[in-house]
Amino acid sequence: MDTDRRLSEDELIARYFAPIAGEGGFGMRDDAAALTPGEGNDLVVTVDAIVAGVHFLPDDPPAAIARKALAVNLSDLAAKGARPRGHVLSLALEEGWREDWLAAFTQGLGHAARAFGCPLLGGDTVRANGAYWLSITAFGEVPHGEMVHRFTARDGDVLCVSGTIGDAALGLALRSGVTEPWALHIGIQSRVFLTDRFLHPQPRIALADILRRRARAAMDVSDGLAGDLAKMCKASGVSAEVDLEKLPLSGAARTLSGSHPQLRDRLVTGGDDYEILCSVAPDDLDDFLNECGQVGIAMTPIGYFRPRDFAQNDCSPIFSDANGRKQYEKGSYSHF
Amino acid sequence: MDTDRRLSEDELIARYFAPIAGEGGFGMRDDAAALTPGEGNDLVVTVDAIVAGVHFLPDDPPAAIARKALAVNLSDLAAKGARPRGHVLSLALEEGWREDWLAAFTQGLGHAARAFGCPLLGGDTVRANGAYWLSITAFGEVPHGEMVHRFTARDGDVLCVSGTIGDAALGLALRSGVTEPWALHIGIQSRVFLTDRFLHPQPRIALADILRRRARAAMDVSDGLAGDLAKMCKASGVSAEVDLEKLPLSGAARTLSGSHPQLRDRLVTGGDDYEILCSVAPDDLDDFLNECGQVGIAMTPIGYFRPRDFAQNDCSPIFSDANGRKQYEKGSYSHF
Repeated sequence: MDTDRRLSEDELIARYFAPIAGEGGFGMRDDAAALTPGEGNDLVVTVDAIVAGVHFLPDDPPAAIARKALAVNLSDLAAKGARPRGHVLSLALEEGWREDWLAAFTQGLGHAARAFGCPLLGGDTVRANGAYWLSITAFGEVPHGEMVHRFTARDGDVLCVSGTIGDAALGLALRSGVTEPWALHIGIQSRVFLTDRFLHPQPRIALADILRRRARAAMDVSDGLAGDLAKMCKASGVSAEVDLEKLPLSGAARTLSGSHPQLRDRLVTGGDDYEILCSVAPDDLDDFLNECGQVGIAMTPIGYFRPRDFAQNDCSPIFSDANGRKQYEKGSYSHF
Repeated sequence: MDTDRRLSEDELIARYFAPIAGEGGFGMRDDAAALTPGEGNDLVVTVDAIVAGVHFLPDDPPAAIARKALAVNLSDLAAKGARPRGHVLSLALEEGWREDWLAAFTQGLGHAARAFGCPLLGGDTVRANGAYWLSITAFGEVPHGEMVHRFTARDGDVLCVSGTIGDAALGLALRSGVTEPWALHIGIQSRVFLTDRFLHPQPRIALADILRRRARAAMDVSDGLAGDLAKMCKASGVSAEVDLEKLPLSGAARTLSGSHPQLRDRLVTGGDDYEILCSVAPDDLDDFLNECGQVGIAMTPIGYFRPRDFAQNDCSPIFSDANGRKQYEKGSYSHF
């Protein structure tokens, strides 16, 4: 492959992006895309940017980076009850970018777009001034007015979370080469599993319709369970009680946190889970859990929403385990 | 203003972005926005990213950067015949960002959003790893199927361009502190005018409806007239002849290029015009020009589309002036 000369932006589009463009993208021959939701539907729009050295490691496989950038947006759409419809991409290539990197990146993006049913509709490719980065705006559809919000949880609702929590935080630590004792003695299978959970998040697209019909409020867990739950509580004007003994953990995370208790807080506060956190009315809980089971995605009740502390006007959620109750002051990964 | 501590992402959203959020943005309290085009309408989607040190100067006024980022997207929408509807923003702040910078940036974005009728609906704020940057995805509306394309120009159509060409390229040179003779002896009024044309592009929103009804093909001129026309020609499978004597120039550009002929090519190849380039059927030309006049935007016929060179399969446009005919090999600013 020719990596010695710089392609023009047009050549780059024709060679790498046009082949993966979907309907409404006009084969990337225009400056804009057209998008029409089905009759009676709203479009749901979400945007997430990821930066080399901040959200992923610069030497992560390019196909994995592309897939993850799309997956984190589709995770947001799923939480809103929206089915994927398409996406547009801004990509900034750094000085000295290689064409084989771009080839692998666009191939990975094309695969992910097909796998998730969310075609590329348009984009802009620019030169970075520093590390490379990308920003994806993704579009989903819901019947008019049925988008699921994060600010609508109510006192008495059951708090549920999908999949397992904390794997990606351990995977990131492993991938970053952390030398704590737990990381040095971990088995190869656990290492591969946890790293994969960090590199290849699974957007819970199959939950979108169920959440739309059964959940009162939902959001995806991207910055850590404790911090994201605090956001949902604050937005909804309620607090929550979480039973940490009920937290769904993978075998690897359970074993590690059993023998290294200092990891337990990291599972709750670490980011990149891309699971769904939701509030469900008690009367709907059985149907909700049954329907999640039918699409093969674990959904675990881990607590409930309760009134906020009106005296302090405090919505902070409370976490309890055998050792007592606690709150996480700075519960989540924050970029600032 | 408190610039000594880092705000959390949530505080930053609540303080700076929530106040400028429009309808469908849910006051930035959710992870996604909802957007519904009017009955029978398509959404038109465009995305443009700009990077400090690449597309603007790092010390450009933050309000001007915000305004320009939105304006360049609305320029695309106008060229597609679409009325603005809303936008989402990815913003990456660099190490050591200052809160007063962000306050000025968001205030500028809010002003521009109101002036252009294109509210902020959502966004993502991250940490840059290098220079700061932003990416805006903007949404417009057209009646179903009426988006104006850039690949539909036909042999015999008249080629027109709005406003004046080349001002921003000179403005960028001035703002970059170029020390060529023309720049050292320029009057203060011309300097202010040209710099303003670079810093504050005017998206031709008022042309959107007229283009939709009267233009066969259109695009905005962002990377230089020569290069962008070459793209339109190639996409449409035709060539074009441009009469450089007819090129609409501002008084400042006309005076400068008269006394410094070496600037003439720069007017045609320099970027950042954000004017509209379009193809109009000869029978529609009078109505088209009249309607543009009615909304107060100059529109100038500068040539016509003609068959491509079938022997060479070459669509490159040809430019002529008193000195003869020429082509621009590398006609436009390219980021690679």
